[in-house]
Formats: sequence, C-alpha cells, structure tokens
Amino acid sequence: MKKANAVILGLIGILICSCQESKVESSEIASSEKSEMLFEKGHKVPNDKFVGNVYQAILSDEGTRVSNVTFEPNGRTNWHNHPGGQTLLVTDGVGYHQEEGKPVQIIKKGDVIKIGKNVKHWHGGTADQAMTHIAVSIDHEKNPSQWFEPVSEEEYKVK
Amino acid sequence: MKKANAVILGLIGILICSCQESKVESSEIASSEKSEMLFEKGHKVPNDKFVGNVYQAILSDEGTRVSNVTFEPNGRTNWHNHPGGQTLLVTDGVGYHQEEGKPVQIIKKGDVIKIGKNVKHWHGGTADQAMTHIAVSIDHEKNPSQWFEPVSEEEYKVK
Repeated sequence: MKKANAVILGLIGILICSCQESKVESSEIASSEKSEMLFEKGHKVPNDKFVGNVYQAILSDEGTRVSNVTFEPNGRTNWHNHPGGQTLLVTDGVGYHQEEGKPVQIIKKGDVIKIGKNVKHWHGGTADQAMTHIAVSIDHEKNPSQWFEPVSEEEYKVK
Repeated sequence: MKKANAVILGLIGILICSCQESKVESSEIASSEKSEMLFEKGHKVPNDKFVGNVYQAILSDEGTRVSNVTFEPNGRTNWHNHPGGQTLLVTDGVGYHQEEGKPVQIIKKGDVIKIGKNVKHWHGGTADQAMTHIAVSIDHEKNPSQWFEPVSEEEYKVK
C-alpha cells in the first residue's frame, strides 16, 4: 500500500465516523419530537386561571375529564381544587406540584400524583423546563374545579 | 509522514468510528427501556378475564380507576363492558380494539379510544406486537366492568 492510499484510508475512516455522528443527532431530534406529540397538544388556555403559556386538549369528558396539559417553562395553574379529586400522569419533562401547606414537589416523566378531594394545589413547569401531564379529573362533570388566586413569584421559587 | 504512521492513522479513524457506533446502540436500548417504563408495569393478571400475557398496575382508584395495562403479543382481554364507560390512551406499541358488531381497529401509540357505557368490546396486542395503554374506567367503583367470553382465534384474526 502506498503512503497516499493509507492517508485516504484514514480520511475515509474519519468521514464514516462523521456521518454516524450526524445520524445520532437526527435520531435524538426525531425522538424528542415524537415524545412531545404523544397526545394532542390542544390550544393555549386563557390567563384567567393560568400564568404563562399553558396548552390543553380535552381527550374525553364523560363524567370524568381526561385532558392533556402542557406547561411551557414558567407556565403554571392558579391555586385550585377538585371536589372529585384528580390524578396527574406526567408523560414528559420536569415540573412542580404543591399542595397547600406542604413543600413544592419536583415531578417528572413517569410520575403519578394523586390529589385528594377538595385539596388546594397548583402545578406547572419549572422556571426553565416544560412539563406535560395527563390530568384525570374525577367526577368533573358534577363537581368541576374551583379556582383561586395565582401562584405568587415567591411561592413559585423552590426553596 | 511514514507509511506505517499513515496506516496507524487509518486504524485510529476506524477505531473512533467503532466506539461511536456502540454508543448509538446503547442510546437506542436506553430509549426503548425508558419507553417501556413510562409508568409502572405491575403484575401479570390471571387468565380468567384475559388471554396470554397481560400486565396491570392500578395507578389510582378513587371512584374512577386509572390503570396501566401492557399486552404482550397475542395477549388480549376477554369480551367485556364498562357500565360507566372507558377511555384508552395508547402510550406504546401497536394493538387491536373491537366493539361488538364493528370491524377490528388497529390502535397505536398516541391514539385515544373512547368507549361508551355498556358497549361490549375487547382490546390487546397484535399477534406479533406488544401494546401499552392507560385505561380510565369511569365510575368504576360503583359500576365495575362486566366480563364475558374470551375472544376466539377467529375473531382475533384481522380480516
């Protein structure tokens, strides 16, 4: 083998290597896009009950309401409760949940949060991370959520 | 550069390339494991109401039951109904759903299936693919599911 051929072999090795690197990147992007789109994102909700950018799609609403909710970073609900109770299933990202009188919990993809009847609470993304959850609001038709004041900047800061 | 050095450069190029290739593989495995483990898998359910290997974890059960159900290929429910209705949210894989008197539907990750009150139906994986869904069984405490006969091999075959 000539010296020039050996150099070409080296360059081909590096070239194949670069191609595989870009494959990894596009695979990660595709996976992230797929993850965001597990269920319908829905429409931005008005800011009378929420702070920041929050999207909701109602997936079913037959007595119990099942909705898909996405909080952009800094987006959160006002304080509220559910007379029938609620279960949150986090399908993507990282966020916060707090029940009145208790510390803020960090919640993430795969977590299941059960909220008792009439427990005042709020939930949302963190200051720099989005969070998506399915919300199962039990017996929502007969006993809809009650809404209270926004979460203050002081309450939103995790101690 | 000597011929020997150039050959070494070539071999280093191929070596770096092989390392990156194995990185890609482990990243894909991690992603697949993560996907399977979005919510707790639970325990294998007995075969009095199901055919094949089916796993269930009850995530919450306050009036409305929220459960995570995984059907291995060929696994399926018997025919049954829900007096309060049910919503299925497919979080992974590909499977079948059929309401009595209607054709078999192919259902996949991201699909939401609403089943009316007392509608007789069955759901499961395909013959060669697993399927995982969250099942929201509305008002399950007061009105639990009613179970009927297994899905025959003839019914299970998609026409």
